[in-house]
Amino acid sequence: MNVLVFNAGSSSLKFKLIRMPEEQELLRGIAERVGETRGRARICCTGPGGTAHECIQACSGHAEALAMALAAIDEAFRASTGGPAPIELVGHRVVHGRDIFTGPTRVDDRAMAQLASIQELAPLHLPPALDVLRACRQRMPDLPQVACFDTTFYCNMPARSYRYAVPREWYDRYGVRRFGFHGLSHHYVTQAAADLLGIPFGELNLISAHLGNGASITAFSRGRPVDTSMGFTPLEGLIMGTRAGYLDPAVLLYLQRRTDLTLAQLVDLLNNESGLKAIGGCGRDLRTIMAARAEGDPDAALAVEMYVHTLRKYIGAYHFAISGARALVFTGGIGENAREVRRLVLAGWDELGLILDPEANHRTVDGRSGFISAPHSKVKVLVIPTDEERMIARQSYQLVV
Amino acid sequence: MNVLVFNAGSSSLKFKLIRMPEEQELLRGIAERVGETRGRARICCTGPGGTAHECIQACSGHAEALAMALAAIDEAFRASTGGPAPIELVGHRVVHGRDIFTGPTRVDDRAMAQLASIQELAPLHLPPALDVLRACRQRMPDLPQVACFDTTFYCNMPARSYRYAVPREWYDRYGVRRFGFHGLSHHYVTQAAADLLGIPFGELNLISAHLGNGASITAFSRGRPVDTSMGFTPLEGLIMGTRAGYLDPAVLLYLQRRTDLTLAQLVDLLNNESGLKAIGGCGRDLRTIMAARAEGDPDAALAVEMYVHTLRKYIGAYHFAISGARALVFTGGIGENAREVRRLVLAGWDELGLILDPEANHRTVDGRSGFISAPHSKVKVLVIPTDEERMIARQSYQLVV
Repeated sequence: MNVLVFNAGSSSLKFKLIRMPEEQELLRGIAERVGETRGRARICCTGPGGTAHECIQACSGHAEALAMALAAIDEAFRASTGGPAPIELVGHRVVHGRDIFTGPTRVDDRAMAQLASIQELAPLHLPPALDVLRACRQRMPDLPQVACFDTTFYCNMPARSYRYAVPREWYDRYGVRRFGFHGLSHHYVTQAAADLLGIPFGELNLISAHLGNGASITAFSRGRPVDTSMGFTPLEGLIMGTRAGYLDPAVLLYLQRRTDLTLAQLVDLLNNESGLKAIGGCGRDLRTIMAARAEGDPDAALAVEMYVHTLRKYIGAYHFAISGARALVFTGGIGENAREVRRLVLAGWDELGLILDPEANHRTVDGRSGFISAPHSKVKVLVIPTDEERMIARQSYQLVV
Repeated sequence: MNVLVFNAGSSSLKFKLIRMPEEQELLRGIAERVGETRGRARICCTGPGGTAHECIQACSGHAEALAMALAAIDEAFRASTGGPAPIELVGHRVVHGRDIFTGPTRVDDRAMAQLASIQELAPLHLPPALDVLRACRQRMPDLPQVACFDTTFYCNMPARSYRYAVPREWYDRYGVRRFGFHGLSHHYVTQAAADLLGIPFGELNLISAHLGNGASITAFSRGRPVDTSMGFTPLEGLIMGTRAGYLDPAVLLYLQRRTDLTLAQLVDLLNNESGLKAIGGCGRDLRTIMAARAEGDPDAALAVEMYVHTLRKYIGAYHFAISGARALVFTGGIGENAREVRRLVLAGWDELGLILDPEANHRTVDGRSGFISAPHSKVKVLVIPTDEERMIARQSYQLVV
């Protein structure tokens, strides 16, 4: 069965066509700069036999990006097989399912309405995913559409991790709790890590750090996620490209009394104008910031220091929370490629049982996976490129067969 | 030189008369239930020769409590020495000095005005301290009054710890940064720990956990505080008696859109109706909650689980942030007495180098200090009763001599 997977970001749309249960990737593509007022979207699609198709055109939003993607997919198949693309099932990444969705879900009108009602919990991610879902249901009315959530992975976390110490009514009536995100990625890479370690997943204590534009870290005890850094929304926890992460909540109440910032402005500032971007002063991309740091820029150096310091604290926190991890996994664009960040994070931890192998760290980039810890490191350190689309294909396939 | 020290809490006023530089305590006392509408304040004062004086009367606020305290002190001295109390200097605990006060400060009109301007940063603590300061200046106009701050200890923390990853204007223009609190207590107990360990303070990496109604934890690298859990205000970090600690900042923005809670109500709820009180459902006192837990109350059990889990995470975080602590110090009412909490916090850490000695843990309560770790524990664990008043006497004395 061929599963077409969509992963909608705030200004991008990734897609893959995967044959299940073989998990054979037939095609992959991405539309970038979706909905940007200046410039045009670029869609790039690598089809059967490795033939690449590229198309650049104006694109007002995710529904239009979806149309471009379907056209590119079709073109790729017609060019190589002479027939239409053999799509049998569509899987969608959905960032937030609140406590309404506790597993992969076949999308009907009711699910669409429920998703629409929780959009403000993930304002960067849910609206584009909904646009794609809506357009897919219109254009492919006969195919089942499955929503796979980043949150459902954490449904069974212990209450000590998902509750906040706030008035009970906030939990009972307004659903204020830690949800956790990036579940598809954490699930994928930790299963792969278990394979590499040769330890059954259900016996494994480990920590996975997903470091991309968004960033989160999850602690596993015996294969179950028991704590994670993102919370009620994807804002909490680690410092990210443009998101603040941890913050004294009293700061917001103080600013609201001292300034005329509106709630919408605060949400925007914390999500889009904070994080590395706010400290480094040269954009949200860690590569740019690392380059500025190398040239002696003090703001860039501070941004990197804060990023690393926060990661070090979370790794130590989870290591102690689960009474000792067997492994630490890095993934996401930064986790997979930023060897200098990995080196800084692990610096000075020889006595604590985490020792880097500098050569392995150096070579494990650009999609390579493997161990980057020294052989005598008590805690193994791995890099595993994430593949959320493959996890979505697995979940979608398992739901319908 | 005899230093009279005042430590004003939200509904209490502690005082001690200490002869410096010998650090000999001549007298101690406390006024409780200050400003409570029902009931009467009780002041209890143990003077020279151990004679105790008690007085119970209505008391509308901290200025009146101060008058009661001075009368009790005087009475205690006249009874034993026949003369008035030999007060030569007055030291005050002040919770928040923002970035205005960077060390112990002799209080003049300008300092009073500056303190008044930052009251809202610590709404439970600064107003009573100001009342006491004002009354002392009126009643003892010839004596120097010294303010000793909980924040100044953290003035030289590295920027990676005191900055938040929020828009730069919030820092530059509104002073949003981590200040850190309980500095007088953390400073006192870690100096005492260095003595017990026989290691010069300036060479010591350690972690101190002050666990009282308020709670904070501080990491030290070579005797310098390098990170701490309380932030811009004393709300952030650990779960406390009535304070929330960590929280996804987006929660507050969400609640403000969904409810008609005002800013003042949110501040009140987060400071006075959260923490252990919100989860355990039987008040803010951990002793009551532990008793309810022992009888099988699930809410009380969850409150303890959350309290312990959060502490475990912070200890691990700081251990890794400083690449390995030599010691962990417990202090504050809970840290000094709650042996079961200490046991739960350290459970399962043998492989990580922290091993409790159950007998030492059991006997080290009620003001006793000493090691509670097993002899073969790589990281030493100590209990040290705090004495903020003694630290205030030291700082005040050093400022004026």
